[in-house]
Amino acid sequence: MSPTVFIVSDGTGITAETFAHSILSQFDQKFRLVRLPFVDSTDKAYSTAEKINEAAVHEGRRPIVFTTLVDSNSNEIVKRSNALVLDMFQTFVEPLEQELELKSSHAMGRGHQNADTDEYKNRIEAINFSLAHDDGQSDRNLNDADVILVGVSRSGKTPTSLYLAMQYGVKAANYPLIPDDFERAKLPNSLLPYRGKIFGLSIDPQRLTEIRNERRPGSKYAALENCRYEVNEAEAMMRRESIKWLSSTHKSIEEIATTILQEIRLDKPVY
Amino acid sequence: MSPTVFIVSDGTGITAETFAHSILSQFDQKFRLVRLPFVDSTDKAYSTAEKINEAAVHEGRRPIVFTTLVDSNSNEIVKRSNALVLDMFQTFVEPLEQELELKSSHAMGRGHQNADTDEYKNRIEAINFSLAHDDGQSDRNLNDADVILVGVSRSGKTPTSLYLAMQYGVKAANYPLIPDDFERAKLPNSLLPYRGKIFGLSIDPQRLTEIRNERRPGSKYAALENCRYEVNEAEAMMRRESIKWLSSTHKSIEEIATTILQEIRLDKPVY
Repeated sequence: MSPTVFIVSDGTGITAETFAHSILSQFDQKFRLVRLPFVDSTDKAYSTAEKINEAAVHEGRRPIVFTTLVDSNSNEIVKRSNALVLDMFQTFVEPLEQELELKSSHAMGRGHQNADTDEYKNRIEAINFSLAHDDGQSDRNLNDADVILVGVSRSGKTPTSLYLAMQYGVKAANYPLIPDDFERAKLPNSLLPYRGKIFGLSIDPQRLTEIRNERRPGSKYAALENCRYEVNEAEAMMRRESIKWLSSTHKSIEEIATTILQEIRLDKPVY
Repeated sequence: MSPTVFIVSDGTGITAETFAHSILSQFDQKFRLVRLPFVDSTDKAYSTAEKINEAAVHEGRRPIVFTTLVDSNSNEIVKRSNALVLDMFQTFVEPLEQELELKSSHAMGRGHQNADTDEYKNRIEAINFSLAHDDGQSDRNLNDADVILVGVSRSGKTPTSLYLAMQYGVKAANYPLIPDDFERAKLPNSLLPYRGKIFGLSIDPQRLTEIRNERRPGSKYAALENCRYEVNEAEAMMRRESIKWLSSTHKSIEEIATTILQEIRLDKPVY
């Protein structure tokens, strides 16, 4: 049977889960993952410890527990359960306290995911902006964009724009490059004033034809020959206009977003 | 001057940054954050260590470094730099190796963010689904939805749907509840077959009028009285139809998404 892994958090546990996932994926072993979010009182800590202990009895082996509890009492309660407890919070807070010669606040809900912070409001505003400026839908307020992604249809612009907005509060517009643009051999007019914030995505024509065929099987739009034409023209245009670009073929939206942030040198966040 | 914090990763460093953020936010202190992604060779590890050492000299204090390097050689190189190095990876991998009596693979790019995994393809498919089913745009394939969010306009359905798709690969459609529905006192017809996967969002009318006024200042749509009417009717309908719902007023999309996942009891992921 797969070992059970509990993720215990006083918040959503999303960061802890993602992080635990990347550690667990280093083992050739399946795990059964149970997320226990919103453990924000000692009562909930006791019932969490109980669940962990029950799993230990039931499965005949002690579970693995990743905790990110800020409250010391709750953390101690969970740590006394019958499990391998990996404390992702206190493990790093203590050496930081020494290094900074400061005590930590042990306050819950201070992160990225708190709805009442300006940072959060920025992220929501950016999502709305990116949705309103998806696929060249609107030229309004393009001036406010932090970045404008261009590329042929289905090169990955939309999910990348939404990711940049959601994760970083980056206002990312996106604009398709279409056959009309290639015939005119010019960037869409509405983009000309914003050349400095344009970033291009390209894609391997073979991959593009696969993606487009899922949407519109057998269409001219999806044909390999047409995909080759569009990708060639788009890349030629980006080179001619000195637009930085990357190939999205084997990259995840996280990898694309990270590269774009480095290239456009957005101000680094200061916490 | 704010202490400098480096985030060193062989991938995007996004998870590490989010995690470091939540730890650093426990200190009443600003930090200058520098993310160094894609450190995937010993050469890059050496130049990373150099950057860290330069910062130490330049700033007259050793920086703080969060690392998540999988490769032991690269990790050792970075650890020898003049810094407080917090090793977010090896710290947890070693006790896990002992507990599981297994060696870890030390393989890079095994996570959530690798574009060549089925999990990743699922996420992209879910994003496309959620966009196509935003705001009741389409009744097609609603059968494929994992969840259908309902609520009045601007109650948080769209960002929550996109977040569920992007983070979890959950196909989340969303459907507005509008005055026509309240007059008919019935759920939109196209939703009736899918009652079991509907989840509601509500919002405080005062907050709703603020949000709507940003979009359409002074409109009837945004007026407090109208917001009160719509929210009352929507909540009455959700109660009548036994739809589970929550108030999004003070909740982040991460918190809303986490609650929805618990309520709809989607199968837990097994890694």
